[in-house]
Amino acid sequence: MSAKHFAVLAALPLLAFTPASAGASKANAPKTSADIIAAAPAGDWRPLDPARTLYMELPAGRVIIELAPDFAPAHFANLKTLVREHYFDGLWIERAQDNYVVQWGDADTKKPTGSAKTSLTPEFDAPIAAARPFTRLPDVDTYARQVGFTDGFAVGRDPKAGRAWLAHCYGAVGVGRDNAPTSGPGMELYAVIGNAPRHLDRNIALIGRVVKGIDLLSVMPRGTGPLGFYEKPEQRTTIRSIRFASDVPDAERTNLEIMRTDSKSFAELIHARRFPAGPWFTAPVGHVELCNMTVPSRMR
Amino acid sequence: MSAKHFAVLAALPLLAFTPASAGASKANAPKTSADIIAAAPAGDWRPLDPARTLYMELPAGRVIIELAPDFAPAHFANLKTLVREHYFDGLWIERAQDNYVVQWGDADTKKPTGSAKTSLTPEFDAPIAAARPFTRLPDVDTYARQVGFTDGFAVGRDPKAGRAWLAHCYGAVGVGRDNAPTSGPGMELYAVIGNAPRHLDRNIALIGRVVKGIDLLSVMPRGTGPLGFYEKPEQRTTIRSIRFASDVPDAERTNLEIMRTDSKSFAELIHARRFPAGPWFTAPVGHVELCNMTVPSRMR
Repeated sequence: MSAKHFAVLAALPLLAFTPASAGASKANAPKTSADIIAAAPAGDWRPLDPARTLYMELPAGRVIIELAPDFAPAHFANLKTLVREHYFDGLWIERAQDNYVVQWGDADTKKPTGSAKTSLTPEFDAPIAAARPFTRLPDVDTYARQVGFTDGFAVGRDPKAGRAWLAHCYGAVGVGRDNAPTSGPGMELYAVIGNAPRHLDRNIALIGRVVKGIDLLSVMPRGTGPLGFYEKPEQRTTIRSIRFASDVPDAERTNLEIMRTDSKSFAELIHARRFPAGPWFTAPVGHVELCNMTVPSRMR
Repeated sequence: MSAKHFAVLAALPLLAFTPASAGASKANAPKTSADIIAAAPAGDWRPLDPARTLYMELPAGRVIIELAPDFAPAHFANLKTLVREHYFDGLWIERAQDNYVVQWGDADTKKPTGSAKTSLTPEFDAPIAAARPFTRLPDVDTYARQVGFTDGFAVGRDPKAGRAWLAHCYGAVGVGRDNAPTSGPGMELYAVIGNAPRHLDRNIALIGRVVKGIDLLSVMPRGTGPLGFYEKPEQRTTIRSIRFASDVPDAERTNLEIMRTDSKSFAELIHARRFPAGPWFTAPVGHVELCNMTVPSRMR
């Protein structure tokens, strides 16, 4: 039983095998996801675009958020104003609700919001053109007619309605709002830290996803107030700053690369996830749910 | 914007409304999930059965696990032996992998395993009779032909094959194993703390679910070793004890009640989750995924 501590582990993408037929293989040996990632050519990776990458600096380290302006352009523009005017600096992680979200901003709504708009037309979905290129997953989804990936983002689509939207997968970042659909201009942001709350899709504006550092948010002590808000100011974690990567000196940037989701390597990973042929799996899987398909990243 | 800090919150079951037609209502007002839970008659609740309830005592508090012996009777019996012989006392939370699992046991495999079996025939699914009563959810599922609830547990079913199995939802508790399907006799347990890894369904034995205290596990610092194992012994959290509730004096028990998943109240909750008609939702949802359907509990 010496290897027993590796229990459960073989179920990871890391150790899931693809059938030899899934792609280029060495001597027909099944390829692991790790093999696929390691063998992915340079062209199957892209750097983060500094102009749509945020660094949230916490005492425990840096959380990196990639934004998706195509899906919520007005929200992106307003967030840009807020960040450029240093709105978030000194504000707090103010809510951590188990199996749901961590939220940050100014629950007290005391901080001046500068030149940012305080009301925005909803951008809860977008024309389907926003979701191009679209790497579609082959399996049925409980919530959407079509699901897949656009530029690293998990996306749902309704071709009949011609609409596409970002999906509430683990690490998705959205803009909190009150009952009024216009009431989420960007002063309150949240990240998903639990099972994908997909019922929120198309009901609130998602603007990006955490590509590194979600584990700094997911371990935040859960708030004991209603909805996981912290009851005492001292329970909050102070945000040192939120900056666009483009506003940070080169030497201080994190040079992360994301696997292109329209690449051959990513297609191989989808296959490896659906048909794990390694020694651990005993029952066929044959499916992959949108939010179980993670997008690899690596340091440049 | 004074209510802005309630952003996202209306999406909670707590504030999701049911159409007045969903069930008994006062003056046709839409009922919230909170209303449904508050109005649920005594007969729609059941106490935990002390003979299949575990208390894991951690420094931060008690984690309560309800076991499902019908789905894995041999694993239940072996775990019972281990717990009765105090196998877990003084062992550790030894792994925390973000968006995946927390695992506990004896990764060093140094502790004598007493009279427990060290190998077990796999029980990764069960005859469909194990899943009775079965409250089926109406929506399609990516992984299983049918999904629903049996006695509070999220369950997948394949009627054609006549098999049923526990699903890897948030809080599900399983028995770690190595590559050999027989290699998971119960000395290593894990709980899901991320997006439901449903590809594990039918590939490993689930034996229950955390009904209280999952938030004590989900905030565990993530391990920096491979698969989230802690690299240094001092990073582990020591388990004070694991006991059956039936072996704990009455005065020390936690008197938790679980809503019956074959009750009218739970059916109303399913409806409320699928058709949230309150002021917050702007887009129809119309669906609920298995692991987004949580089962209410309350103190007696």
